[in-house]
Order: sequence, then C-alpha cells, then structure tokens
Amino acid sequence: MARFEIIGERIHCISPVIRQAMEEMNPEPIIKRAQEQIAAGATYIDVNIGPAEKNGPELMKWAVTTIQEACDNIPLSLDTANKAAIEAGISVYNRSKGKPIVNSADAGDRIEYIDLAAANEAIIIALCSKAGVPADNDERMMFCQEMLERGMMLGLDPTEDMWFDPLFLVIKGMQYKQKDVIDFIRQLSDMGFKSTGGLSNVSNGTPKHIRPILDSTTVSMCIYAGLTSAIVNPLDQRLVESIKSADIIMNNSLYADSFLEL
Amino acid sequence: MARFEIIGERIHCISPVIRQAMEEMNPEPIIKRAQEQIAAGATYIDVNIGPAEKNGPELMKWAVTTIQEACDNIPLSLDTANKAAIEAGISVYNRSKGKPIVNSADAGDRIEYIDLAAANEAIIIALCSKAGVPADNDERMMFCQEMLERGMMLGLDPTEDMWFDPLFLVIKGMQYKQKDVIDFIRQLSDMGFKSTGGLSNVSNGTPKHIRPILDSTTVSMCIYAGLTSAIVNPLDQRLVESIKSADIIMNNSLYADSFLEL
Repeated sequence: MARFEIIGERIHCISPVIRQAMEEMNPEPIIKRAQEQIAAGATYIDVNIGPAEKNGPELMKWAVTTIQEACDNIPLSLDTANKAAIEAGISVYNRSKGKPIVNSADAGDRIEYIDLAAANEAIIIALCSKAGVPADNDERMMFCQEMLERGMMLGLDPTEDMWFDPLFLVIKGMQYKQKDVIDFIRQLSDMGFKSTGGLSNVSNGTPKHIRPILDSTTVSMCIYAGLTSAIVNPLDQRLVESIKSADIIMNNSLYADSFLEL
Repeated sequence: MARFEIIGERIHCISPVIRQAMEEMNPEPIIKRAQEQIAAGATYIDVNIGPAEKNGPELMKWAVTTIQEACDNIPLSLDTANKAAIEAGISVYNRSKGKPIVNSADAGDRIEYIDLAAANEAIIIALCSKAGVPADNDERMMFCQEMLERGMMLGLDPTEDMWFDPLFLVIKGMQYKQKDVIDFIRQLSDMGFKSTGGLSNVSNGTPKHIRPILDSTTVSMCIYAGLTSAIVNPLDQRLVESIKSADIIMNNSLYADSFLEL
C-alpha cells in the first residue's frame, strides 16, 4: 500500500494573508505557507484562488510556478471554479513529482471538471454529491458511478486518476451520519478506488480545543476503512501524528522509532 | 450501540505501590488508583493480584470488597491465575452495577476459566490463542470457535458474556500483522460478538512519548472495526479522548461540546 497523501489546505484565498498576497502577486507569504505545510508532512499543496473571475488564468499560472519553483516541484491541487484558470495552471505545471489534481468535480453542475481533468491528464477529485448532502450511501454510490462512467469513457484510469470524496459531514447536526461516511470509504476501498475529502469539516463548529481530537480520531478510523488522502491542515500536529501512526499500523510505511519525524 | 467499556489496568501487582498495598492489605493506595481511573473514564476496574498462591482467595475477597465499597460498586475484572481466588472474589462481589469479568480464558491451558465464568454467572474474556501468537486470523477464528462452543454448552450468552480478545501484538517486530488483528475484530463484530484486549501491547517497546500516539490511533481504528472494550490505562489522556471521540463518531454516545468531560 502507498502512504497516505496529505493535501495541505492552507493556501486558500479565504485567508487574509493569502488573499492579499494573491492580489499583489507577492510570492513570500505563499511560498512560506507551502514550505511550512511540506515540512509538516504535506505531500500535495492545494492552491485555492477562489472564483478568480478577473485574472484567474494569470493568477493560477503565477501561483503554480511560484510554489513549484520554490518547493522542488511539489505536486499541486488546483482549486477554483474558474476552469480556464485550472487549464492555465496545468499548462505551466511541472509533473516531475506527480500529476496535478483538479479540485473538484461533482455529479451535478461540476461534472465537466472530469472532462477537464481527462483532457489535461490530471487527477480529478470526484465529490459523490449532486446538490447538497447525499441522502445515504446508495445515493453516494449512484453519484460515484455517474462520475466513474464519465471518467472511464474519457480515458481516466479509475483507480489512479479519480479520487472519490465521500463528502464529510459536520458532527454537530449530522452525528448519526458519521459512520455512514466511513462505511462509504470502505466501499470505495473494497472496489479498489482512492478517496480524499475535506475531513476537518467533521469538527466544524465544535470548540477549538476539541477539533484536533475529533479530526485525528476520524482520520484514524477512515484510514483503517481505506481512505487514501485528505485535504487538511498539516500544521495540526495531532492530526498528522495520527496519519503517520495509521500508516504504520496499516503497514503503508515502515516503523522506526523516529517515524513521526520522517 | 453501547458505549465503549474502558477496563482500567492500573491495579496490578506488578506495580510496587500496589504490590506492597496488597501484601499489607492497606486499602488507601488501591482505593486511590481505583478512584483515579474511574474519574478518568474507566467503567470497569481490573484487579490483578498475580499468581497469589498463598492467600489468593483471602486477598481477592479483600480487594473486591475494598474497591466496590469505596467506589459505588464499580464492576470489576478479576485477574489471576488462581482460580479459587476468582471464585472467592465473586462470592463477595456486588452485581448492582454489572457482572464480574473473569480475566481470562484461552483455547489452551486456560480453557477451564470458561467453565468458571459459566458456573459463576460472570463474563469471560476469551483470548483467541492457544500457545503463543496465533499464526493468522483463521487460527484465531478456530480458537474463538472452540471457546464459543464450550461457553455456549455451559450456558454462557455468547454475545453478552463472552468478550473475545484478538491478542494485540507489538508493532516492533510484528508491524505487518497489525491490520490482521483489526480485521479480526471486524470479523468478531460482524458475527455480533463483543471484544476486548490489552491494546497498549501494540506500542510496547516504542519510545515513551510515542506510545499514547500509537495507542490512540490504534484504538480509533479498532473502534471503527467494532472493538467494544479494552484493558488500558485510563490516565492516558490522549487515549481516552480518542475513545470518547470514536464513541461520538460511531453514534454510541451523544455529542455535546462538553463530551470529553462526561
């Protein structure tokens, strides 16, 4: 088994520091956050430029080049509703350390992101949702199948290039659905598929000191169920410790007394 | 689903303080450790008096009465190779908060502990092992079946009164077998059986600061697989936080912002 992929979520235009850096095309804050996340264990960096309706292509090209040049061509996840910006980003993307990820398609309005990924030999994150929260795992699987069919028709390798997102749900309000989400990950894993998602959504709205506890427990359970990746904050030390430990327990990486520092 | 049962392991004659207290029949250190463990989340207290060849029955009676009287009749797990001591302990045991646990039978030399539990209307911990480490999960299941057959013939309720122990293994040396152990817990759970075990054996021999990290990750994975109990140190805060969080995620207990204090 391969090691768990941590997609660092901290280059996001919702952060005031990052938003300003993107507006000014100031590389320092962006490179700093990329380097911090890589040092903490991220193996992919998500680059969320928001809707970027004005200068999306230019901005994404700049962000991709800036981060990859400073960070030994770390692979990236390109995250925006602006499809032209994703294509522009991929046009300057260096594949030496891994394919780009397109973040993300769903089975509804965003299904054409699958086409975009296929046309650009990228990985697609495929959210198993159409509009809102799927009613149950049967519905999740139906959406998964719709995206799978489209991806395979377009030539995507379904077990390598399609990472299915079960749609993690908040505990506060949807506690009774948490186990379903993990069971769906297990279904995906049993079918041979990779998976990912915004895992810390689980603890959204819970007290700040509890979030790392809930998130680290959730990720441990999900990795046993077969989750292969998550879009998370790698600076959450407890979370990353649990991911590295779960990789040891699943025999995805070899135990050494120093494994938490590796 | 019921909440996870934490069997506190800290009243053990291997501890110098406890050994001395048992030799002198001094209640204070024993009551203190029981109370600490209960405050930290233990729902059962294990009482390990060792082989206790001389005064086993007298010592176990004293320990059972001492702890239950001081701790609102907390249920206990009676842990010794001296069968007469277990029977003596049960003879004075107060069942108002739960049955006593006999710790433990296996499918080899200790199989008669099943008879002892059945004769005394107790719960039996049934270690899925005969001599040494089971070769694989088929062997674990064979031992489980042997004990199950014996327990059922003797009138034990197999889904309530037999708690199967998969035999947790050390990561250092048996890393590649960790997932098997969890998969076996899943098999037990799928069959409707309860499970328990000395979970912290997983991290035995790893650096001290790593043990709570490995143990809390392991217990999270195991609870998703269906583990219903573990014999652990409830003063390991990270471990108990993960257990309580996993109970929330599995919907075994209701979420409240204060759930870690409950």
